[in-house]
Amino acid sequence: MSQATNQSWGGRFSEPTDAFVARFTASVTFDQRLARQDIQGSIAHATMLARVGVLTDEERDAIINGLTEIQGEIERGEFNWSVPLEDVHMNIEARLTDKIGITGKKLHTGRSRNDQVATDIRLFMRDEIDVIEVELKRLREGMIELADREADTIMPGFTHLQTAQPVTFGHHLLAWQEMLARDHERLLDCRKRVNVLPLGAAALAGTTYPIDRHVTAELLGFDRPAENSLDAVSDRDFAIEFTSFASILMMHLSRMSEELVLWTSAQFDFIDLPDRFCTGSSIMPQKKNPDVPELVRGKTGRVYGHLMGLLTLMKSQPLAYNKDNQEDKEPLFDAVDTVRDCLKAFADMVPAIEPKKDSMYEAARRGFSTATDLADYLVRRGVAFRDAHEIVGQSVAYGLKTQKDLSEMSLDELQQFSTIIEQDVFDVLTLEGSVAARNHIGGTAPDQVRAAAQRAREALSALQGQA
Amino acid sequence: MSQATNQSWGGRFSEPTDAFVARFTASVTFDQRLARQDIQGSIAHATMLARVGVLTDEERDAIINGLTEIQGEIERGEFNWSVPLEDVHMNIEARLTDKIGITGKKLHTGRSRNDQVATDIRLFMRDEIDVIEVELKRLREGMIELADREADTIMPGFTHLQTAQPVTFGHHLLAWQEMLARDHERLLDCRKRVNVLPLGAAALAGTTYPIDRHVTAELLGFDRPAENSLDAVSDRDFAIEFTSFASILMMHLSRMSEELVLWTSAQFDFIDLPDRFCTGSSIMPQKKNPDVPELVRGKTGRVYGHLMGLLTLMKSQPLAYNKDNQEDKEPLFDAVDTVRDCLKAFADMVPAIEPKKDSMYEAARRGFSTATDLADYLVRRGVAFRDAHEIVGQSVAYGLKTQKDLSEMSLDELQQFSTIIEQDVFDVLTLEGSVAARNHIGGTAPDQVRAAAQRAREALSALQGQA
Amino acid sequence: MSQATNQSWGGRFSEPTDAFVARFTASVTFDQRLARQDIQGSIAHATMLARVGVLTDEERDAIINGLTEIQGEIERGEFNWSVPLEDVHMNIEARLTDKIGITGKKLHTGRSRNDQVATDIRLFMRDEIDVIEVELKRLREGMIELADREADTIMPGFTHLQTAQPVTFGHHLLAWQEMLARDHERLLDCRKRVNVLPLGAAALAGTTYPIDRHVTAELLGFDRPAENSLDAVSDRDFAIEFTSFASILMMHLSRMSEELVLWTSAQFDFIDLPDRFCTGSSIMPQKKNPDVPELVRGKTGRVYGHLMGLLTLMKSQPLAYNKDNQEDKEPLFDAVDTVRDCLKAFADMVPAIEPKKDSMYEAARRGFSTATDLADYLVRRGVAFRDAHEIVGQSVAYGLKTQKDLSEMSLDELQQFSTIIEQDVFDVLTLEGSVAARNHIGGTAPDQVRAAAQRAREALSALQGQA
Amino acid sequence: MSQATNQSWGGRFSEPTDAFVARFTASVTFDQRLARQDIQGSIAHATMLARVGVLTDEERDAIINGLTEIQGEIERGEFNWSVPLEDVHMNIEARLTDKIGITGKKLHTGRSRNDQVATDIRLFMRDEIDVIEVELKRLREGMIELADREADTIMPGFTHLQTAQPVTFGHHLLAWQEMLARDHERLLDCRKRVNVLPLGAAALAGTTYPIDRHVTAELLGFDRPAENSLDAVSDRDFAIEFTSFASILMMHLSRMSEELVLWTSAQFDFIDLPDRFCTGSSIMPQKKNPDVPELVRGKTGRVYGHLMGLLTLMKSQPLAYNKDNQEDKEPLFDAVDTVRDCLKAFADMVPAIEPKKDSMYEAARRGFSTATDLADYLVRRGVAFRDAHEIVGQSVAYGLKTQKDLSEMSLDELQQFSTIIEQDVFDVLTLEGSVAARNHIGGTAPDQVRAAAQRAREALSALQGQA
Repeated sequence: MSQATNQSWGGRFSEPTDAFVARFTASVTFDQRLARQDIQGSIAHATMLARVGVLTDEERDAIINGLTEIQGEIERGEFNWSVPLEDVHMNIEARLTDKIGITGKKLHTGRSRNDQVATDIRLFMRDEIDVIEVELKRLREGMIELADREADTIMPGFTHLQTAQPVTFGHHLLAWQEMLARDHERLLDCRKRVNVLPLGAAALAGTTYPIDRHVTAELLGFDRPAENSLDAVSDRDFAIEFTSFASILMMHLSRMSEELVLWTSAQFDFIDLPDRFCTGSSIMPQKKNPDVPELVRGKTGRVYGHLMGLLTLMKSQPLAYNKDNQEDKEPLFDAVDTVRDCLKAFADMVPAIEPKKDSMYEAARRGFSTATDLADYLVRRGVAFRDAHEIVGQSVAYGLKTQKDLSEMSLDELQQFSTIIEQDVFDVLTLEGSVAARNHIGGTAPDQVRAAAQRAREALSALQGQA
Repeated sequence: MSQATNQSWGGRFSEPTDAFVARFTASVTFDQRLARQDIQGSIAHATMLARVGVLTDEERDAIINGLTEIQGEIERGEFNWSVPLEDVHMNIEARLTDKIGITGKKLHTGRSRNDQVATDIRLFMRDEIDVIEVELKRLREGMIELADREADTIMPGFTHLQTAQPVTFGHHLLAWQEMLARDHERLLDCRKRVNVLPLGAAALAGTTYPIDRHVTAELLGFDRPAENSLDAVSDRDFAIEFTSFASILMMHLSRMSEELVLWTSAQFDFIDLPDRFCTGSSIMPQKKNPDVPELVRGKTGRVYGHLMGLLTLMKSQPLAYNKDNQEDKEPLFDAVDTVRDCLKAFADMVPAIEPKKDSMYEAARRGFSTATDLADYLVRRGVAFRDAHEIVGQSVAYGLKTQKDLSEMSLDELQQFSTIIEQDVFDVLTLEGSVAARNHIGGTAPDQVRAAAQRAREALSALQGQA
Repeated sequence: MSQATNQSWGGRFSEPTDAFVARFTASVTFDQRLARQDIQGSIAHATMLARVGVLTDEERDAIINGLTEIQGEIERGEFNWSVPLEDVHMNIEARLTDKIGITGKKLHTGRSRNDQVATDIRLFMRDEIDVIEVELKRLREGMIELADREADTIMPGFTHLQTAQPVTFGHHLLAWQEMLARDHERLLDCRKRVNVLPLGAAALAGTTYPIDRHVTAELLGFDRPAENSLDAVSDRDFAIEFTSFASILMMHLSRMSEELVLWTSAQFDFIDLPDRFCTGSSIMPQKKNPDVPELVRGKTGRVYGHLMGLLTLMKSQPLAYNKDNQEDKEPLFDAVDTVRDCLKAFADMVPAIEPKKDSMYEAARRGFSTATDLADYLVRRGVAFRDAHEIVGQSVAYGLKTQKDLSEMSLDELQQFSTIIEQDVFDVLTLEGSVAARNHIGGTAPDQVRAAAQRAREALSALQGQA
Repeated sequence: MSQATNQSWGGRFSEPTDAFVARFTASVTFDQRLARQDIQGSIAHATMLARVGVLTDEERDAIINGLTEIQGEIERGEFNWSVPLEDVHMNIEARLTDKIGITGKKLHTGRSRNDQVATDIRLFMRDEIDVIEVELKRLREGMIELADREADTIMPGFTHLQTAQPVTFGHHLLAWQEMLARDHERLLDCRKRVNVLPLGAAALAGTTYPIDRHVTAELLGFDRPAENSLDAVSDRDFAIEFTSFASILMMHLSRMSEELVLWTSAQFDFIDLPDRFCTGSSIMPQKKNPDVPELVRGKTGRVYGHLMGLLTLMKSQPLAYNKDNQEDKEPLFDAVDTVRDCLKAFADMVPAIEPKKDSMYEAARRGFSTATDLADYLVRRGVAFRDAHEIVGQSVAYGLKTQKDLSEMSLDELQQFSTIIEQDVFDVLTLEGSVAARNHIGGTAPDQVRAAAQRAREALSALQGQA
């Protein structure tokens, strides 16, 4: 029964696995992506086994040399992945035994595929989190610098997509940056919980070999061994927590994307995106489409979906490891790739955004954007806020009828609604005056924006050393 | 600027696409799966264009021959897919122009990639639905036959996973079959809405060429042309509806899987699964794990996730086509593959389930499973149901204390709780009597189960011709 | 132990339910909404029991009179709902026994709360589906009429939110209507699967009483009894299928809402919504916010969430009824209410949309919206489509530099890019010409729009009789 | 137009809100739950306004006294909530103006409902997180104590729900506890990001009044003011992050629930749950159902659903506040209530779990649970692990045929498979020997379990001061 004996668990079985079932249940087509981490973990495990006397130094060295060669074969694309060998672990172990003989079979002493795969994924996630963090920092830096440059650029601020009050473009960009700052914190919080060693949990209960899990943890750079073997082999919280981080991040990118798409429309016309970030149409020769933000917005769905998939996967699973858990990898891999690529695309694109300042300014001048300033003016002259609101509301109704913005009305016209209004009202009805007056922490005044950019820079550097 | 001119929309652009952006926005790595349908649609389009005089017959023939050759190249793995050419459509069209020259460029007359891809996916989905339906039928048939065979096999029925009343194994299997019967109906309902032709919508508004969409619809086997061009290019309802069908189906399979896993545990021990559907452990030599049902249960999550991903994708998209929509394919492909493979695995496995009848029967004898029969006995003797319930409740409390099932108590013992009870009570306390007494449509009596199996067979054949 | 004896299952228990647990597990706070259907089902059950001789006619009449009085008490708000009585079923039955004595206890003969609640929810869903259908029809009718009125109104069509080609506003509205037509079909498909009778399944296995389920089905207007008792008490497919219908519908409304919000912005300025559908700001006196579409868009999330919640609920549940299922009601109730209210809000609002035709027309004149028409013009003069696309692309690049739309260029200017262009090109560069030329089924030509509106009217009436 | 003037934004409007629209868009039916926090925030705002001179001390005192009275009215149920007044904010402000006249209208100076509601929710979430943390601690403590007590109780450990290796019940409980320890960390990480002050962002851009946000932050116990006004009014990350925490927690509780349901089944029979945590059946008098764990498992779905709902809600929203955001409250309130109640139910129930030790022990003796120990025994005698695995696999196959567990075979029988086996093999084949041998950090040996319980206690107290 050659097929069965290829497998790591054949002894008890009386017929080989059904061919379709073998393909259906195998994971090597996707978990080979963990090969580097699998070898890294095996080297640490062998080193520890030698340290505690379960392997001799010669055995350890043979194993490490063999694994190092296999790593080379994989990197050079020379490794033959075999589906009957089920997964990355058995593929590598079988190759090791081919190479170094019976000693290869000793590597699996004191561990199981259950703790092995949990270790591999955690090593993988730690690596990927660090790559993602680099792109996230780059994007935040690009935003902060652009915000600083555009601290004086006036655009309309919207609520309900209706013109609300003038803001600065720099202020708007720093709102984006704040979203990412929270994502950054969540990423680092998640990393703490990733960086724990499952190895040593063996199948579910620990092992009878005299292993030293602190040694393995140290060799692999983990903060500590996991506290409980049953939990260690079945815990996939870190995958869900990462995907939850990723979902919130993608939600943020979808919001930025929505705005970029709006702003490049003929109707808004607030920015240009360089041609290199856009594509055209096969039928409409005039089209220049903001593909990058559209696609990023679209990719939000797949990450939300993976989050839901992983939560569903783990719902109601009894302890300890169940085969269901094999399904954790593909969504996680895809979430990692999506987040990394979307961040890279944004980190490249954001600094290249070209604001069309005249168009922004002109839009801010329309839509009664300084109506609140008029209300505040009245309050400073002693009118209660609610009454001032009513007065300005009537002025706006008049403006809609006469097609005049507030700053275009004469003093006489304005005084119809309140005799308290005087000539100096026109100072507060300018865009520059409106913006400059919101001069407190978090406000849109250019000086506040520059100060906020500086604080953001400092907060970002303060995070650098943390991971 | 050679790269830009490779693309179908270069004229308006002043710089080539950024290399990372080109890779990030390209779809050819996954949409090449639609090649067969893309060619099928193009042949129908060319045929129609010739019919209405936009192409000459010679042009049509050149195009059809060229496309047929390309189909061969793709099937033989000789086709070079190019990422700079973005997608399956441009790859095939570029190759066609290589082959037949300028005439190849005429194929795109009167259509756009927007209606082209919508057509491709609908053709693809129709094909895949038909394959899925074959597996679904096979599984339903296997269940019905097994149910018929096991119409007399008694097992405990559970509610709240507590022993409730005896049922037959055949009855239980037919409950599964009913779930699948609804899935089958939903699949065919979905197919109706898939089978509509978008082609002719062009980019979004229709085309100025004198196309005849009824001809194209007929050539491709579609029921009718889509009614509105803006809707036709942006509608992805069918993808969501299919994934919703798939989610409910996977939910059903997860329920069956949960029961199969329970039943193969040492604690339940109700069935055996042949070794060929199971795998072992790399560390625990005694293990025989029900991998197929576990994995199917686990795969439920990915399909739920795709449903959520697609719903998120389409949320709030303005008309008509947006680049976001490129993200519809991967989740749909994966949902299709998952459903097809899980159904195949079940269709192979279900007929091979080996019930352990003694173990089932023994379990049904425990847990006071005939308590309801005793209550019904009392009601037939004139006790109001609620009072009978109370009397039996007290008998059970006594049984728990004395470790006796109801049928193990003496008549004296039973009469402690009601003097109405007589010797004939023991007839209703047998498992066979309990099961046989539930003798109405939908009930668990063996005769009802056999009749239900027969009706299920007939309902299934009645569906055959429908698709 | 008075509390335990209040309950329907006290006999076996040795201590009363913990007070917090009683509140935590009770459902009466929300399932009292099913009271009308619960009574309707009980009346049919009692009628059937009398028909088969399990109840006397006097008992039946006493029960029906008692239940009818209770119905009145509930409608008048005089009914005291009791949490210790757990749910709507026990509350009504306890009240019935208060009223008519021991006969009330006989009502529960041959049924269980498991099949009773399944029947109640199906009756409820059928009622609600019919109410929802009324609103859906009203909305479709309103859209069709508005579309017919606006068949000649020209606006820009967008892809990627970039100006693509001119379309008519009527055409755009009919795209919305097509989405709803599919929703309508799905709703009726779902109704078929709702309208099946679970009653008679009893707890899980059927009952020993000589019930006639066909009679009950007929009395309650169900198409047929459910085929399998285990399935009948545990099936919640219809809840998921309805919520899936609801999710797709909400997705459609979110897309329409997104467009309505865009169109009321100062930047688009395509429509006005009457003040009665909008609200203002507590601080910005000029604001008029499109609250209704925004809120509908926001409500999409809750319905998607309920779909995911229900799918999660049912994942991996073994047969038959589990307490988990109590969690089906609140999401379903909320999905029903949300869909009904959102449809009502839209059905009221859509006919009141006021298109700003000049603004739409002006927007369509910008953005090179007739570039495709120029390409088609070249093709008709013998240029291959791909070459024509390149020529027009260069014209657009020139237009961007010189700030001229295509129709604003001189013939000389146009001839720079192709000498094939002649004076008659200006006919195809008008918006009216562009729109009228897309004159095939599904195209945006005004005549096609009017014909499509007529077909839509007919399709809608054809559905009327179906439910 | 009396209705319009009831509202806070009437001046600009020419017709009153449609009656249905008013009901549809109002939030007071659910956001009145924020009344306490709304008043708390208003008192701090008024205090700050007086501190910076915008209000006089008399105005401040009048406002604070008025609000305090209103708080009392609400607590006593005497407050009339009005739907035409839209929301909790306007209801309270209108009542304040009733009470103290024009000064009440000054309270809204320098703020908007946008920053007001953001502040209210954050205060609410902080309060609720602290309540939830109390229940979470109580549950963790109960688990740790039970684990310590049951450190020597042997039960079968499962993988794939197949008997794997013996573990201790205490070890299993500590696996649960580890899940909760991570939840606890995540909750505190989330709290950091909740505890930031939005007030001062006003509608979106800040305010022209000379506010001091550091003062307000300090008065309300917030760590700092939010850095950016546009972000502050539109950020709902904290709601998503909390619901994500809640989803993972519910997933954990669903896993524990699944096990509790399994363990109370007749087939497992590992534990008893006291009657006070269970309910019965209306039809089957013998039933005692584990309602609490079932219901908790079922409630997992609603929390997952809320997470998906909130992620969907925020997808693609442009800055700043949109009406969509009103939809954040109901899912968040329900998630808070669900988590709190489920934790309370578990914290009450877990210490009352009664392990049936004999039944657990007997189950562990079946299923070849010490097969790995035999393999390890062979390895210690020099057999390579993979070969030892094969030898034991054959012994198990023999045991299945002869119905003997490994410890029941004679030495002769065992030596059939390997002559290396000697008499001392029977020491490692006992359950006690197997368990005690897994004696390293994270292993199931009783001493390790007791040490782990002690570390868990210390980790829990270390967290106490943190929040």
